[in-house]
Formats: sequence, C-alpha cells, structure tokens
Amino acid sequence: MRIEVMANVMDKNEQLAQQTKKVLDDRGIFMVNLLGSPGSGKTSLLEQTIAMLKNELRLAVIEGDLFTAKDAERLKGFEIPVVQINTHGGCHLNAAMVNKALAAFNLAELDLLFVENVGNLVCPAEFSLGEDVKVTVLSISEGEDKPLKYPLIFKQSAVVILNKLDLLPYTPYNLTATVEDLISINPSISVVKASCRTGEGLADWYDWLRCQVERKQHRRE
Amino acid sequence: MRIEVMANVMDKNEQLAQQTKKVLDDRGIFMVNLLGSPGSGKTSLLEQTIAMLKNELRLAVIEGDLFTAKDAERLKGFEIPVVQINTHGGCHLNAAMVNKALAAFNLAELDLLFVENVGNLVCPAEFSLGEDVKVTVLSISEGEDKPLKYPLIFKQSAVVILNKLDLLPYTPYNLTATVEDLISINPSISVVKASCRTGEGLADWYDWLRCQVERKQHRRE
Repeated sequence: MRIEVMANVMDKNEQLAQQTKKVLDDRGIFMVNLLGSPGSGKTSLLEQTIAMLKNELRLAVIEGDLFTAKDAERLKGFEIPVVQINTHGGCHLNAAMVNKALAAFNLAELDLLFVENVGNLVCPAEFSLGEDVKVTVLSISEGEDKPLKYPLIFKQSAVVILNKLDLLPYTPYNLTATVEDLISINPSISVVKASCRTGEGLADWYDWLRCQVERKQHRRE
Repeated sequence: MRIEVMANVMDKNEQLAQQTKKVLDDRGIFMVNLLGSPGSGKTSLLEQTIAMLKNELRLAVIEGDLFTAKDAERLKGFEIPVVQINTHGGCHLNAAMVNKALAAFNLAELDLLFVENVGNLVCPAEFSLGEDVKVTVLSISEGEDKPLKYPLIFKQSAVVILNKLDLLPYTPYNLTATVEDLISINPSISVVKASCRTGEGLADWYDWLRCQVERKQHRRE
C-alpha cells in the first residue's frame, strides 16, 4: 500500500533536483535535459552532437528508457561514459534516478552532461532533474500543431531542435506557423532548424552548447 | 491535500470503464480507444475513416487533448457528433472523463464510437476507458525501434495502423523489422500499412471496422 501526498512528492523531487544542480554547479558541469516525442530524433541529435564535440568537450550521457538499452547501445561506439536508466514502464525520469546515476561518472572529468528523457511530450516536463536547461526535439513529421497542443514543454525549453527538415519537401508542413507558435508560447526560445539524420543545420546548436559550457565554467572560477 | 491509495485508484478507473462498457454493450455500440504518439496521425486516420464510413455507419468521436480543441475542429465539417475532453495538462484520458462524455450523445443512434486519446505512447495504455479494442497509430517517421521500446501499448492493441507510408522512400526505415517486432510482442495484432494523409492502404481497416460493428450488433440481438 502506497500513500502519498501529491504536493510533497513534487517537493521531494525538487529537493533532489536542487541537490543534483548543486553538485554539477560546484564542478562547472552543464546539464541538458533532452525531451521529445517517441521518435522525434533525440538519440540522433546526441549521435551528431557527440561526434562533433567529443574531441573538444568531455561529454557523458544518461539514457532514460522504459525497458530497453537500445539508445545507449547506439552511443557505444563513441567511447564516452553512458549510463542507462530503465523506468520499467514509468513515463518520465525523476530527480532521484538521475541523482543516483551521477555516482557512475567521474565528475572531475566532465564538462557537459546530456540526459535523454523518456519519449513523451507531456509528463517529463513536470519533473525537474536538476538540469541547467531543457531542450526539446520536435520533428516536422509530427505536424505543425504540436507547440499549441503541448505548450508546457515548449514554455520550459531554452531550445527547440526542429528536426527532420530533410522531409520538408514531402510533407505539407507549415514551418513558419510552427516557429510563430513556438515564439508566442515562449518568446525567449531558440529554434534550430535541422536534420539530425544528415547533421545539416546543427552548427548553431554546437556553438550554443560551447558557449553555455564556457559560461558555466567561467562562473565557477 | 490529496491522499490516495494507488491500487484503489486503478480499481475505480476499472469500475467506471466496466460501467461504460456495459452501457455500450447493451446498445450494440462498438468503441475504439485510439492511441499513438503526438503527430502519429490519429486525427488524420479519423478524417479518412469518417469520410469513408459516415454514410453507412452512425459515428461519433470523443476527442482528448491537453488544452485545445484543435482536433475536434478538424472534424467539424463531417457533421457527426464530436465531444471535446480537455485534460488540462493530464497525460491520458481516464474512464470517468469518457463515462461523463457519453451523456452528450444520443446512444440510441450510434454504431461506432472513436475515442482519440492524448498523444502519448506510455500513460494511456494503463487506463482502460471501457473500449472494445485499443488501436495504435504508429508512423514510420518515428523510427523502427518503437514497438520494442514501448511494448505495453502494442501488447494491448488489436490493430496497429503503420502510418506515413508515403514517406518510406525518403527514410531509411526497415518496415519488415517493425512488423516482426510487433508480432513478437503481440502475435494476434493486425498490422495495417497505410498513409492516412492520402488514404492509401486503409481498405482493410474499413472492412475490419464494418465487421466488428456487425458482430457486436449481432451479439446483442
């Protein structure tokens, strides 16, 4: 039997998230909580990003998934630390899971930590993990109505990667409308138009990451 | 303050789902709980299906969405009864919401009721609504690893609509692998390969629906 008071459950998550945040702040590690629907391209974004940045920044990944380690396996070849969290059916990562996973890394040798959340546009937005920023991958094949239909996640995201731009000629997608909707929900959001399969359009994303890591390490000094 | 015992919450949902099921069984109404990721094509499937069947079957739709009525608006032109449920951020429909929405219909004049659930491959699978079957729309642009990554929803589905087949020439998608994975998870699942945008490939789906409605009405007599 499990009795819980909802408000306290949220507070406990927030407390653990703050703990994680402090640990990472003390070491100048920048953390990205990576969100998006199933199949939006989160792991593809990581593959491209790790290939581009692994020789200039010290990277690590926490992979969240219901049951499998399929995403972690896709990252094996890069020889960076990857930890798999299985939620056993749970629809989001929580701060306790991530806090515990940190023990698997040598934090003294880390600049940038990605956490790939469970594929879900709803629940993960409600649980802070101690990240510096949330970044959401939204593929154009999901249709242009998604920002207004799932506003919370876009309200909370610093960056949206508008993915699968290589499919644009084959769909009736209205790119301008999506960008306008995103900005109406969150005026400070950065929109990166890209194809995570081909790598096209990601230069601004890499520069943004480099800048965030540098600023965080500078703040600590 | 909200104190709840988890097991009882589930039981209460199941009780209400059974109530809904009985109401629909008594009237010979077949109910489909339509599931899938955001942007998989649930509403497009409904648009095609309603256009095809509305002159031979008496149809109605319950639309589930977080905040908007965008999907319900897309169905306006068909002149069939549509009820919108907003979950106000909630990640799935529950049996109480659907049970309440039934009051908006004239059940004596209904053969087939579609409930379009919130776009989410995880949470909606855990809450029965009193449906005859769950049907999941999975678009090929989501990637071929989705059945094994989100097995519960496919285990529970009678039919999978494998959607956006018109994009197949432009993606490295392995259709055979997806179908094999679906059958390994659920040997009795029916897989319909289709494009809900163009309507191609949906003939088997329409026949399947006609057959289900006929059987349900026959069973009542």
